[in-house]
Amino acid sequence: MIVDIALSPALYPYYRQDHDTVIVVDIFRATTTMCQMLHNGAAAIIPVAEINEAKRYKAEGYLVGAERQTRKCDFADYGNSPFDYTPERVRGREVVFTTTNGTMAIREGATARELLIGSFSNIGALARHCMERAERIVILCAGWNNRINLEDTLFGGAFLERLADGGRVTIGSDAVRVAQLLWQQVKEDPLTFLKESDHYARLIANNAEEDAAYCLSCDTLSVVPLYHPAEKKIRAYP
Amino acid sequence: MIVDIALSPALYPYYRQDHDTVIVVDIFRATTTMCQMLHNGAAAIIPVAEINEAKRYKAEGYLVGAERQTRKCDFADYGNSPFDYTPERVRGREVVFTTTNGTMAIREGATARELLIGSFSNIGALARHCMERAERIVILCAGWNNRINLEDTLFGGAFLERLADGGRVTIGSDAVRVAQLLWQQVKEDPLTFLKESDHYARLIANNAEEDAAYCLSCDTLSVVPLYHPAEKKIRAYP
Repeated sequence: MIVDIALSPALYPYYRQDHDTVIVVDIFRATTTMCQMLHNGAAAIIPVAEINEAKRYKAEGYLVGAERQTRKCDFADYGNSPFDYTPERVRGREVVFTTTNGTMAIREGATARELLIGSFSNIGALARHCMERAERIVILCAGWNNRINLEDTLFGGAFLERLADGGRVTIGSDAVRVAQLLWQQVKEDPLTFLKESDHYARLIANNAEEDAAYCLSCDTLSVVPLYHPAEKKIRAYP
Repeated sequence: MIVDIALSPALYPYYRQDHDTVIVVDIFRATTTMCQMLHNGAAAIIPVAEINEAKRYKAEGYLVGAERQTRKCDFADYGNSPFDYTPERVRGREVVFTTTNGTMAIREGATARELLIGSFSNIGALARHCMERAERIVILCAGWNNRINLEDTLFGGAFLERLADGGRVTIGSDAVRVAQLLWQQVKEDPLTFLKESDHYARLIANNAEEDAAYCLSCDTLSVVPLYHPAEKKIRAYP
């Protein structure tokens, strides 16, 4: 099993190969929130990259989550907090979802053999899924406007550790070594470490401090969100 | 003084701003070798991105250094080892130089207010130069075919440490925090750490093991190579 990581969507073209299993991560907060939606019973997530597309869905009566620059868009039902998507709100529904970076990363990785949605909340379930089904894994970090960020990079190191616990893993490139070293250094208390990060300040400024702690909690749920390219929807596997 | 870092040339567009001082680094080995050329008395370096351009210069009688995929190109006088460019060979001459990643990174950064060539060998001289003259610094890592690498990333952390020793420094983004943490973790013995890296295996395969150790030696020379955009040449500052 080979593991690699693209620390930004802009780097993904230089890491991608055919037959990859791609894991999109946007820890603060899009992919954490997507895992929460499916865990809470949403039938599917329809990721859309553009605001106008989300508005069209809204006009058709869909439940719509939309965020730009860490804030909920006015027209949307909810924003990008995992706490927005309670079972009462999402059970059995298809949720249209667009966020600054996360949904664009999904578009980048949409041609992978298998595209999964990752977060600390489902990290163990994902690792088990990949150990059974994947040949080569590329973690695709959503980053921030194509810049790399600490929290997505850290996930890469944490995920590598989970895979290594379960068997033989080959490090695909120096980018994985970077993620591994960072994780080893801060894994005892990633939240404190991330308080210095670019995104944490934005979360605080938008009263989303609680979200940050939740987004770093491991194994709170066991859903494996899988992208279905034909219908362009994400559903819980199987 | 703000410091930022683009861990790959593909990321540079997302970090660049007007009035930047850009430091191009390709630690193994292009920028280390360029520092050595100027230290040893070369009048200038003419960086060229394409092999055919280097061949035209060769036909005109220029001294030409050319490397692709860690190997000296057949037509060239020398390759990409700092030991190739002795004072006897380069003193007073203009050296045409093309390497896999380094010269392409220079092309990326050529519109900066000031473009400098960095390596561990001239790290102290560079830091002093920047503390006097720069407002915002972006370290532009050459990487490997647009993938990030450990050695260039480490330079970023080391350079930040030098600047911080000399005064007030503002971290520009999470990418700098990544470089800083890596450097703090391995600075006592970067060579041993880098023996696991992507590029080290390539150096060994091409009998360039000695080069690696040299490329990680700090403050062996004090030249500050500055790119002159009008003539497209690199000369020792001032």
